Amino acid sequence: MTDYKSPFQSITWEESHISIIDQTFLPEREVRIDLKSPGQVWDAIKKLKVRGAPAIGITGGYGFYLGINELRENKFDTFYSEAQRIADYLGSARPTAVNLTWALKRLMATIYSQKDKPIDEIKKTVLNTAITIHEEDRRLCKAIGEHGETLIPKNANILTHCNTGGLATGEYGTAHSMILHGHQAGKVKQVWVDETRPLLQGARLTTWELKKAEIPFKLIVDSASGILMQKGLVDLVVIGADRITKNGDTANKIGSYNLAVLANAHDIPFYVAAPYSTIDMSLESGDQIEIEERDADEVTHFANKSTAPKKTQVFNPAFDVTPHNLITAIITEKGIIKPNYKKHFEELFSV
Amino acid sequence: MTDYKSPFQSITWEESHISIIDQTFLPEREVRIDLKSPGQVWDAIKKLKVRGAPAIGITGGYGFYLGINELRENKFDTFYSEAQRIADYLGSARPTAVNLTWALKRLMATIYSQKDKPIDEIKKTVLNTAITIHEEDRRLCKAIGEHGETLIPKNANILTHCNTGGLATGEYGTAHSMILHGHQAGKVKQVWVDETRPLLQGARLTTWELKKAEIPFKLIVDSASGILMQKGLVDLVVIGADRITKNGDTANKIGSYNLAVLANAHDIPFYVAAPYSTIDMSLESGDQIEIEERDADEVTHFANKSTAPKKTQVFNPAFDVTPHNLITAIITEKGIIKPNYKKHFEELFSV
Repeated sequence: MTDYKSPFQSITWEESHISIIDQTFLPEREVRIDLKSPGQVWDAIKKLKVRGAPAIGITGGYGFYLGINELRENKFDTFYSEAQRIADYLGSARPTAVNLTWALKRLMATIYSQKDKPIDEIKKTVLNTAITIHEEDRRLCKAIGEHGETLIPKNANILTHCNTGGLATGEYGTAHSMILHGHQAGKVKQVWVDETRPLLQGARLTTWELKKAEIPFKLIVDSASGILMQKGLVDLVVIGADRITKNGDTANKIGSYNLAVLANAHDIPFYVAAPYSTIDMSLESGDQIEIEERDADEVTHFANKSTAPKKTQVFNPAFDVTPHNLITAIITEKGIIKPNYKKHFEELFSV
Repeated sequence: MTDYKSPFQSITWEESHISIIDQTFLPEREVRIDLKSPGQVWDAIKKLKVRGAPAIGITGGYGFYLGINELRENKFDTFYSEAQRIADYLGSARPTAVNLTWALKRLMATIYSQKDKPIDEIKKTVLNTAITIHEEDRRLCKAIGEHGETLIPKNANILTHCNTGGLATGEYGTAHSMILHGHQAGKVKQVWVDETRPLLQGARLTTWELKKAEIPFKLIVDSASGILMQKGLVDLVVIGADRITKNGDTANKIGSYNLAVLANAHDIPFYVAAPYSTIDMSLESGDQIEIEERDADEVTHFANKSTAPKKTQVFNPAFDVTPHNLITAIITEKGIIKPNYKKHFEELFSV
């Protein structure tokens, strides 16, 4: 297996600062910006210049280092409490982003574990840990792609939903990594990109990523997936995941369940590609996942223009749950998992 | 059965001119405009101020009368050739609109059948025929609603797609007429409205029509239909039809097939409501219907703002075909038709 490099890096560490692709300019322009202080990082996370759970965690980690590196405290106790203040501040940019909280907690634990070391040395360790968080994400995304690629037949037409690529992660992405590695192996004929209403992550971001990787694709409205499957123009579907329960039920962007039902009705393989950490063994099944509803405005407005009568009532669920029996395989960095998911997950988690 | 009047009239004949709801102002404002000449009618059709196949035919019919009524010719031959010129002119506003061509041909045939009558009398007959075209559409839409209503259970949650209401027809609509009459009978709890990408006819027009009729509804993105069915929140699906083939296969707005597959997977009745004239006995099955592709811009742009990278390739089919085996019943003005459609259609057409 050759060492495939993805065609862009959404986040890079440049010795003394962070460089990111400012996603608010996409897809029209590719603009890189430098983040040189915790304030700039907070702003970038808050204003969605960087988005996608892993990407936010990685950027937050580097941002935390930028903050603690400026501290002039010489004593551990005051250094530690100032570091906590910086972690709290950065975490407040996107309180619901689990990866951000996780990265900041991990870096605070790193500091604490080094409490007997000189402050300068602790600072270096924090930077190394932030780089490690980034590297770990790169490696796991790459592993997902390498495992998933083996499931792609020759000359494949692949349908995907939402955005699961390098913009949202350290590099490569999840479902997108499988497509990238399949393309590198010469097996991808074309990708069908669901535009993914209401926020159009497919139209805006996935198309941009595929264009960068020079992979042939066509954009469709979400409800054109059926006709493509009916006409034999889809060989497999692959999506990412927000959360996977103990039995394999998978929560992901609204519309994922529709694709799973359609794929099943047409005997088309339906794959979920996600980090192992997405599997939540504390939940028995998808019934236990509460569906989050998002603002009506996402559906009733576009570019500040109204698309529906005033005061229109909306049902706008953020995600849906695909039951395990509609999922052909789940691909994580640890390999390809096939049904019975519950049995295989229990084996994996007991190691 | 009480005589239900719909809450608005999209087209009315006002003794010497036409009054229409200018649909380009919807859903934000309800604006009525007067059309007093064939030029104004041509403009209204061309600029989509009036849209929907039956509505265009009806407006074109009245517009034709406005044109021939102005003619000062006393001899039938010159009157007839001037009338043909007006028909050609109006037909050119929307050359692919079958109902428009049909209405104009019918009115030209009316003139010809009266060729021995005084010109003034012919003019009156043309107006009466234009009014009849409108009345016939009203009656058939009402009949569709009255038949369809009997299929609605008490306390029903109904899911519908695209726009099938009074805006697009003489009055009541097709699938929408079934909902209106079900509401009048006190059986409709709520309507789920698919926004219907790419042109958002559901979000813009169906919501407006339901609001006028004071029927409770919620707007959803097209791909939220699955989660609603999964959670038991849909009791039936009803859509309109562009064309129905001899075996019952139904071409309709893109996304209709997805709904049919999903409804089938959840054991939810899936109904098609359309005029009898939509049944095309010259086509054996849906395989013979060529899928029309529309402009990429419909998907890549909204309100002049781009939603995808430049030069993005798009697959934008106007409609899809739902195979007959996924359709629970087809409702026309002649009654409810259940499978085997081919057998029942042949019986109906042989009468």
